[in-house]
Amino acid sequence: MITAAAFEAILREKLPFAQALALEIVAVDAERTVLRMPYRSDFLRPGGTIGGPLLMALADIALYGAVMAALGPVEQAVTTSLTINFLRRPPPADVTAEARLIKLGRRLAVGTVELFSAQEAEMVAHVSGTYSIPPRPE
Amino acid sequence: MITAAAFEAILREKLPFAQALALEIVAVDAERTVLRMPYRSDFLRPGGTIGGPLLMALADIALYGAVMAALGPVEQAVTTSLTINFLRRPPPADVTAEARLIKLGRRLAVGTVELFSAQEAEMVAHVSGTYSIPPRPE
Amino acid sequence: MITAAAFEAILREKLPFAQALALEIVAVDAERTVLRMPYRSDFLRPGGTIGGPLLMALADIALYGAVMAALGPVEQAVTTSLTINFLRRPPPADVTAEARLIKLGRRLAVGTVELFSAQEAEMVAHVSGTYSIPPRPE
Amino acid sequence: MITAAAFEAILREKLPFAQALALEIVAVDAERTVLRMPYRSDFLRPGGTIGGPLLMALADIALYGAVMAALGPVEQAVTTSLTINFLRRPPPADVTAEARLIKLGRRLAVGTVELFSAQEAEMVAHVSGTYSIPPRPE
Repeated sequence: MITAAAFEAILREKLPFAQALALEIVAVDAERTVLRMPYRSDFLRPGGTIGGPLLMALADIALYGAVMAALGPVEQAVTTSLTINFLRRPPPADVTAEARLIKLGRRLAVGTVELFSAQEAEMVAHVSGTYSIPPRPE
Repeated sequence: MITAAAFEAILREKLPFAQALALEIVAVDAERTVLRMPYRSDFLRPGGTIGGPLLMALADIALYGAVMAALGPVEQAVTTSLTINFLRRPPPADVTAEARLIKLGRRLAVGTVELFSAQEAEMVAHVSGTYSIPPRPE
Repeated sequence: MITAAAFEAILREKLPFAQALALEIVAVDAERTVLRMPYRSDFLRPGGTIGGPLLMALADIALYGAVMAALGPVEQAVTTSLTINFLRRPPPADVTAEARLIKLGRRLAVGTVELFSAQEAEMVAHVSGTYSIPPRPE
Repeated sequence: MITAAAFEAILREKLPFAQALALEIVAVDAERTVLRMPYRSDFLRPGGTIGGPLLMALADIALYGAVMAALGPVEQAVTTSLTINFLRRPPPADVTAEARLIKLGRRLAVGTVELFSAQEAEMVAHVSGTYSIPPRPE
């Protein structure tokens, strides 16, 4: 419903805080949306790991992509809730987010996001979130 | 346990992504930690409201302050989980976060954060979160 | 919008699993809905504390009451999400839930619930939850 | 680490509220723990669907099983947080819960639970939860 190029244009032109993270789009398709957040030293927090707010931003934007992969460019879709469990401290390295929808209703989409470090096989954080979908023409 | 000046120094020197938000410390005391995020146009998302990742970052950092207000400068404390409910779309204006602890255990702190826009009386988002506390000398 | 007697009738006649808990309605008003769950020994789990599922049930039903306190007898309102943080292990004693709405939209209500043991001053669990509100005549 | 028979004995002898649900153990192994909750008419709520508290109880107990499948009979493990997203209203039919751990730390286990109705292919609810693990001998 949306191409990687179209999603990339939305991030670049309409989400300046996403643009500032220089996210790379790995996949945007019916199955899953995958984004990569290239490592930068200003993502670190005490302890030398990547800060939670960066992981939450990455996950939220990946889910935004998953909603548009299912519905087309519904830019006005907004997060209504998000829960994150931090599992392992991500080392100084790229982080990848894989978002999938588990429900696509008329008004609400629900999805999960799994976050992985480029350095480790095991998941570093797990997210579930809901998006409110704006009314659309029939 | 920690002064506003000491918390401000941690944000400035050790949390570059917090520093980039230019957060202002309104209060750091035993009752609550209050931070203000001054509005910037690059916080906006489609629809002209402030993006969810900014609100999540502000809430997480306010809770970090509340943990240090209770325990002193435990910089290595890390978020283990966070749930946010977005209640109203925050207009282009400053946002304030008020964090309070509801449990302070030996290994885990739990708190809530209420987010308010400078433009509205009603809460714009509600957060509950948990922090893992590093082992400390007796 | 709904009296304690009317809410009690809904619990008794239409929510058999709530009825089985013998919940007592302490208050149902615009400010808050308060329910008490009288202690029974079959609520216990290993360690001699009250099981999590009992606390979740109590909180969910208290929030259901808060929605009806705001809107009248919208029995078809359904929970769409719920997050609970368990703070302290509740000893064998009555548990009280205090539910408050923090948002009342046309389609969605959001609230928090604080759970207390009759034996202790400190909160034993904190809940945030969302209810989907059925369409109503204007 | 624990057999289905051993887990069944814990539910029967030490969790009376689980015993009251007559849960059936479908699988308890390293990969996943699967429980089935046989339908009963007293599980229904207004609208003719299965009440949220029953789904939350089923999910929490499935995750308890997953923790013991990984660690052995650590009966004193307790839930510290749980988030549920209700996706579709479960019709009057059996519900199955599939629990998997996504982190197994020394002190904390984190898992997800997917709930399915016997009547439908699509997930009816999704849960993420954390369990605190009691100290064990080395």
